[in-house]
Amino acid sequence: MTAEMLARRARLMGPNVPTFYEDPVHLVRAEGVWLWDADGRRYLDCYNNVPHVGHCHPKVVEAIARQSATLNTHTRYLHDGVLDYTERLTAKFSHDLRQMIMVCTGSEANDIALRMAQAVTGKTGFIATDNTYHGNTSAVSQLSTRRPPIGGYPDHVRLVPAPDTVRPVGGKLENQPDAFAENVARAIAELDANGHGFAGFMLCPTFANEGFPALSPGFLDPTVEVIRKAGGLILCDEVQPGFGRIGAEWWGHDWLGFAPDVVTLGKPMANGHPVAAVVTRPDVMAAFREAFGYFNTFGGNPVSCAAALATLDVLEDENLIQNARDVGAYALDRLQRIDHPLKAEARGLGLFFGIEFVRPDGTPAGPFTAAVVEGMRQEGILLNRIGRHMNTLKMRPPMPFGRDHVDLAMDTLEAILARTPYDT
Amino acid sequence: MTAEMLARRARLMGPNVPTFYEDPVHLVRAEGVWLWDADGRRYLDCYNNVPHVGHCHPKVVEAIARQSATLNTHTRYLHDGVLDYTERLTAKFSHDLRQMIMVCTGSEANDIALRMAQAVTGKTGFIATDNTYHGNTSAVSQLSTRRPPIGGYPDHVRLVPAPDTVRPVGGKLENQPDAFAENVARAIAELDANGHGFAGFMLCPTFANEGFPALSPGFLDPTVEVIRKAGGLILCDEVQPGFGRIGAEWWGHDWLGFAPDVVTLGKPMANGHPVAAVVTRPDVMAAFREAFGYFNTFGGNPVSCAAALATLDVLEDENLIQNARDVGAYALDRLQRIDHPLKAEARGLGLFFGIEFVRPDGTPAGPFTAAVVEGMRQEGILLNRIGRHMNTLKMRPPMPFGRDHVDLAMDTLEAILARTPYDT
Repeated sequence: MTAEMLARRARLMGPNVPTFYEDPVHLVRAEGVWLWDADGRRYLDCYNNVPHVGHCHPKVVEAIARQSATLNTHTRYLHDGVLDYTERLTAKFSHDLRQMIMVCTGSEANDIALRMAQAVTGKTGFIATDNTYHGNTSAVSQLSTRRPPIGGYPDHVRLVPAPDTVRPVGGKLENQPDAFAENVARAIAELDANGHGFAGFMLCPTFANEGFPALSPGFLDPTVEVIRKAGGLILCDEVQPGFGRIGAEWWGHDWLGFAPDVVTLGKPMANGHPVAAVVTRPDVMAAFREAFGYFNTFGGNPVSCAAALATLDVLEDENLIQNARDVGAYALDRLQRIDHPLKAEARGLGLFFGIEFVRPDGTPAGPFTAAVVEGMRQEGILLNRIGRHMNTLKMRPPMPFGRDHVDLAMDTLEAILARTPYDT
Repeated sequence: MTAEMLARRARLMGPNVPTFYEDPVHLVRAEGVWLWDADGRRYLDCYNNVPHVGHCHPKVVEAIARQSATLNTHTRYLHDGVLDYTERLTAKFSHDLRQMIMVCTGSEANDIALRMAQAVTGKTGFIATDNTYHGNTSAVSQLSTRRPPIGGYPDHVRLVPAPDTVRPVGGKLENQPDAFAENVARAIAELDANGHGFAGFMLCPTFANEGFPALSPGFLDPTVEVIRKAGGLILCDEVQPGFGRIGAEWWGHDWLGFAPDVVTLGKPMANGHPVAAVVTRPDVMAAFREAFGYFNTFGGNPVSCAAALATLDVLEDENLIQNARDVGAYALDRLQRIDHPLKAEARGLGLFFGIEFVRPDGTPAGPFTAAVVEGMRQEGILLNRIGRHMNTLKMRPPMPFGRDHVDLAMDTLEAILARTPYDT
């Protein structure tokens, strides 16, 4: 069955189409934090952030069904949906971030964010970290190192070393905030020198794809000072930390403690319905909208807005941000208690947590981590790995994840760790 | 009410957000070819191509509701939906176009198409017509003249004069196919000369945004010869003509009679659910997928595929392509019978038809056409205008449009034409 499906995928979708696991899971059903495969086997979902308030949440499903049966059209006509949702969501932001464009994917959102920085600054140079992912359009793929762009990195993009709490930028943890900022300053000088000038720095405030290093609030302060001085914009990609994932706050930038100029949102926004957005200040929005007649046919349609609004309702009604904080702290505590010779660091923030594994000789234990991911899948727990060396277990479950789910995941993890050879 | 909503839009969405009509319609409900506003007033939809098989078609709504309640995840796990739909849809194509990438918007699809041409040719230069629209990402906005890109047109883009049957390229209708091809050849030579080289020509096979000129099959033959000789790709944007809109065939390129290398699909694909796709040959797909690890979180998810599959089912079960041919011919016949001093040309193909208005002195009658659009809206008929001078009425209704709907639209149009001053 799996072999046949993989053959059909190759025939219909072409080569090099990514899958999880060598023997990928064939899913047919999901509910809450659980997934079922075609053989009726149940998996605990410790990985998927798109079904934010739980797979197939009945209130979101009902909202989608009801609005799909009523009206689905674009925003060149008037409709309450896009206004009600925008009003509800922008109220969660500070820093005068109170206008929004709704689109369909995080990639579209980040693609707009880049152009907002261009419109405001008149410059074309961008900075990102050297171990990140911001999306798949031509423009944003040039700021993504996890899948290098077609044609290579262009001259207007500069990549700075990603923060890391096991191998910190600048050598020592206490030097990292300044060392990171110095690299940004150097990149800005290069963009000034090569004629592009500095338009903006696109970053995830928890550096999730970089390996979610255990940073503290204030980490970015020296960098923000450098960016402000240079007149560039901070483009904050909240696709992963946003919507309360980190438990501490609604948004990563509020936790880290800085004021972005543009915030982009995606994956979890409507629990799986293709909805994403750009939130910004009125001055930035005006600069963009007056420079470019942006319109997105599907963006902000009534069904998308109903799905996003229902997701927001569930997030609040079920106190899921508080849950992410409590259950995340419980999970981190269990991770920290794990005693294993390859464990370099257990870290996490809310419902985004994991362990980085390093071999006794100091080299990253990527293959070992891969074996653990595979072992967990065999035991019915879905998670993944991340980081520059892919040696960090990444757990990022739906937000209704409970302590019982943590216990099941951690008990299983301990068993897998105990039986996975260290030298894998 | 409308004033209040427009004020909320300005406050929440910023300036320069496009709307239809100075007094935009506030829609609340839709069914088939009908829309209702907040006051209960009914409008005949002669414009919207997104609700392809009719607004809120119960079979599509049911498919979305059912799959949303069952499973919605990305394609890194295996699922039948994306395979079943891809198999069904690619079977509608010739020219070895048998592999597909599913994405969320036509803009994302066209953004991929550009990179496919780059991956195959190793070149970076593109051609489009000088009166078109292919999407809103940074890259495809550079091939769109209806909303010029931020930063202006880059050096790797060349725009050729759009075909036109009232003011033909090359002066005379019979010269237009060769004159169009000569301009393409000149653009290719410029791209070769400036170092970019020629990667591809992106075009809509019915030149819909250009004003859907009344071309004949074979029009593009001289151009295709030029492109083939230069080694570039033909990127065929079927967002508007595709899925049987033109009545004659499933796809515009099959009607015009040429073999594209890449076809992109969008708006009507899933009746309003954000679904789009790129269809291409295995050699082109392999070149792209091996050069870039493309992945789209929402693209090809089970709900999108269920919506697209249901749309395809309805299209076939209700014989809507045959309907587009029959009713489109009837509509064109009625348009051709209209006697009006400003009428320069009545034209159409399937359920995409209209009239171009020109003043007695030969200047395009844009303001007159705008007044007709506004008059129709006051009488409860929604349509629009298009073309370089915005002097062509554009009617492009949902596919279940019937002869009775044509009669209502045409009777109303005749009345509006009779009472709209010629010198508007």
